[in-house]
Amino acid sequence: MSVFDPPAARRDALRTDLYQLTMAAAYHRAGLTHTATFELFTRRLRPARRGYWIAAGLEQALDYLEGLRFRGEDIDFLRRLPAFEGADHEDFFARLAALRFEGEVWAVPEGTPVFPWEPLLRVSAPALQAQIVETYLLSLINFQTLIASKAARVAQATRGKPFVDFGTRRAHGPEAAELAARAAYVGGAVGTSNVEAARRLGLPAYGTFAHSWVMSFDDEDEAFRRYAEAFPQNTTLLIDTYDTVAAARRIVERDLPCQAVRLDSGDLAALSREVRRILDEGGRSEVKIVASSDLNEDKIDAMERAGCAVDIYGVGTELVTSKDWPALGGVYKLVEQRGPDGGVRYPIKLSSSKRSWPGRKQVYRRSQGALYAGDLIALADEEGHPGAPLLEKVLEGGRRLRPSPPLPEVRERCLAEVARLPEGVRNLAEPAEYPVVRSEALVALAERAYEELRHDAR
Amino acid sequence: MSVFDPPAARRDALRTDLYQLTMAAAYHRAGLTHTATFELFTRRLRPARRGYWIAAGLEQALDYLEGLRFRGEDIDFLRRLPAFEGADHEDFFARLAALRFEGEVWAVPEGTPVFPWEPLLRVSAPALQAQIVETYLLSLINFQTLIASKAARVAQATRGKPFVDFGTRRAHGPEAAELAARAAYVGGAVGTSNVEAARRLGLPAYGTFAHSWVMSFDDEDEAFRRYAEAFPQNTTLLIDTYDTVAAARRIVERDLPCQAVRLDSGDLAALSREVRRILDEGGRSEVKIVASSDLNEDKIDAMERAGCAVDIYGVGTELVTSKDWPALGGVYKLVEQRGPDGGVRYPIKLSSSKRSWPGRKQVYRRSQGALYAGDLIALADEEGHPGAPLLEKVLEGGRRLRPSPPLPEVRERCLAEVARLPEGVRNLAEPAEYPVVRSEALVALAERAYEELRHDAR
Repeated sequence: MSVFDPPAARRDALRTDLYQLTMAAAYHRAGLTHTATFELFTRRLRPARRGYWIAAGLEQALDYLEGLRFRGEDIDFLRRLPAFEGADHEDFFARLAALRFEGEVWAVPEGTPVFPWEPLLRVSAPALQAQIVETYLLSLINFQTLIASKAARVAQATRGKPFVDFGTRRAHGPEAAELAARAAYVGGAVGTSNVEAARRLGLPAYGTFAHSWVMSFDDEDEAFRRYAEAFPQNTTLLIDTYDTVAAARRIVERDLPCQAVRLDSGDLAALSREVRRILDEGGRSEVKIVASSDLNEDKIDAMERAGCAVDIYGVGTELVTSKDWPALGGVYKLVEQRGPDGGVRYPIKLSSSKRSWPGRKQVYRRSQGALYAGDLIALADEEGHPGAPLLEKVLEGGRRLRPSPPLPEVRERCLAEVARLPEGVRNLAEPAEYPVVRSEALVALAERAYEELRHDAR
Repeated sequence: MSVFDPPAARRDALRTDLYQLTMAAAYHRAGLTHTATFELFTRRLRPARRGYWIAAGLEQALDYLEGLRFRGEDIDFLRRLPAFEGADHEDFFARLAALRFEGEVWAVPEGTPVFPWEPLLRVSAPALQAQIVETYLLSLINFQTLIASKAARVAQATRGKPFVDFGTRRAHGPEAAELAARAAYVGGAVGTSNVEAARRLGLPAYGTFAHSWVMSFDDEDEAFRRYAEAFPQNTTLLIDTYDTVAAARRIVERDLPCQAVRLDSGDLAALSREVRRILDEGGRSEVKIVASSDLNEDKIDAMERAGCAVDIYGVGTELVTSKDWPALGGVYKLVEQRGPDGGVRYPIKLSSSKRSWPGRKQVYRRSQGALYAGDLIALADEEGHPGAPLLEKVLEGGRRLRPSPPLPEVRERCLAEVARLPEGVRNLAEPAEYPVVRSEALVALAERAYEELRHDAR
């Protein structure tokens, strides 16, 4: 059971919140047959100190929707749950056993920058189906969007220098590590240390050795030589186990074979410059310098400003957990109900500070020269707005309309799209706000819906 | 492929960092045949604002070790990796194909409070085996320990009131949600909203309905009634979609059937008291009050201090991501090498601020009356120290020595053990430091090892 399984092999119908299934049973019993439209979106960028989010996770979301099946063992488990006691749900269970996701999905392509209140995904399906998929869609898209967004910041900080995901051991379990490896690549990483992610997703895999290798020998040089014997074309010597500068000098003096050295502690900017000088003066200018050690976009930015001599960055914990802001508050909200008679309702809620915007939406992104100038959130059936629509129809009748783009293409797209954002929005420390407005028709629809609700409440 | 698969069904040999496998190949080529001992431990509680960590994740770690196998397809993938080009590794690949984990593991039982530098796990095995398992062990134990520790803080804040894991949609993917559900339960949650976690792990499952249910009807009362028809014994009415207090009044006035109500926005402490008063005065004192909405231990603590009338807490994002500190910096370090001739080496490193403590260790926990008074970290072969040893031998020759305790027992153990910590250490805001000292023999061994290293370096 993996998020990377193809649709036919999926076994994840129960990977959801119980209330999705109890609500589904209640929809069924109440005989609700309308088509519901839900939108998945974020509500804010602050206090996360982000200038944008990078949409990611759609591929696994579509695999899930195409493969959704409740098996006999799933239904047997539900039947025995105390929650389902007290009423006869056999008719609902029979419906679950036959259930396929038959809806329509519109989505922003992976690797696209998005802003608060812009739908990343719009799902229209029979209410029961659209409801059941909420939790899984959120958990896939929230996390990958979070990590792709963090990776895009790291890419900004390295100024085009390559960086590699090193975070597996601190990710939230093995699968989170693989999802993070994927999302980090979408956001700009060149690859990952995670072998399974490399296999599953075709990502480049990176890595050589750890301190334990050096510590396994009495002599550091022997550790270096032995490793190079095993990997003559791929030796990155970790040189900080005892004395970074002394090790760099011995590499030159004793002509120790290697393609790169790695620094994993101390003042990385200063050490990288000193090691670079030693290598260059010793005729080893071809040897690259890799830096790691609890790095994040701020530390890398500071190192780059300080003129460090690092060639490749390894970024771990901070990247795969988005440590400064480890949860994307994406939500999935009901915005429209379309009855079997064609009648349309626009549901809203009033819960304090959780205002909702009804109606199916589209986002139009305007350009000014090479850069993006602002977005308009409009109703999906409005016409004539300038700019490129962000949401594309990707699933119809529960089936994909076209194969997904290869991941390297998604990554290139992301780098190119981020580069088109206004510079202030890409600022790491205090990103400027990107202009997003709502169409008059959308605002009018929301006002009408609130007015009607107040009227009903009287 | 799941972290919850039994040993015989595991397929996770490649769920690791590439450098574990390249190091293994280099160990093999270098003919290193010593037995290596690694210890898994944390280095600090601050700045995480934690008074202790709760050991968790051992069960899945042992399943992994028992089930570790490299299959033909795994090895084929490695053979094609650019990293393995440039030298002949067929002899190593043949060894991988036959590899079983044959080592010995000592571990602190799940649910036990632990402190910095105390080994949660000690692995002794042929160097190649002990090295390969590092990444997976860290990713399982780091994350579950992180979440169990957060849950223990939430349990402290609720003062014995039940709380449920509601975090699946914000966890780092579906598997992280299930691992978090398990760890939250170990730390004190009474159950989870996650159905798959409930099935896999036998946890109690909780949940009723969301705002989208209410918004699917023109009339809130109709939504309430329809739900209660479907779930007459399990109806928790979410009453904040439009007006919390008005909904509570109607429940009383119109005698709407329910066992509980849920508040999900606004001033939860004040609203809970008002709703409680309305329900009690209306003769509905049996109706429980559930509260949710981005809760964490601090908010719950404040609500409890304010005398709220909440009966059950739902805790989501903050719990399953440990949002204020989302990564446990657990490490896995080489502490001893035992040669085929019986000779012992104590490896150390000097990397700045990453000092290491050599030698196989045991931890002794002393009591004073009903409370724990302090820990001693000693060498494993020392004798005569007072207190109860924390590490138990759990795996020998790669096989479990006994079945793991049932999860409810682990949870009870955790609650009881935390209750035995000095009160200051359990303080949420500024936990006091728990006394941990090292034995004279351990300190002497470390000094000798550093002295020898300095001598060698001259």
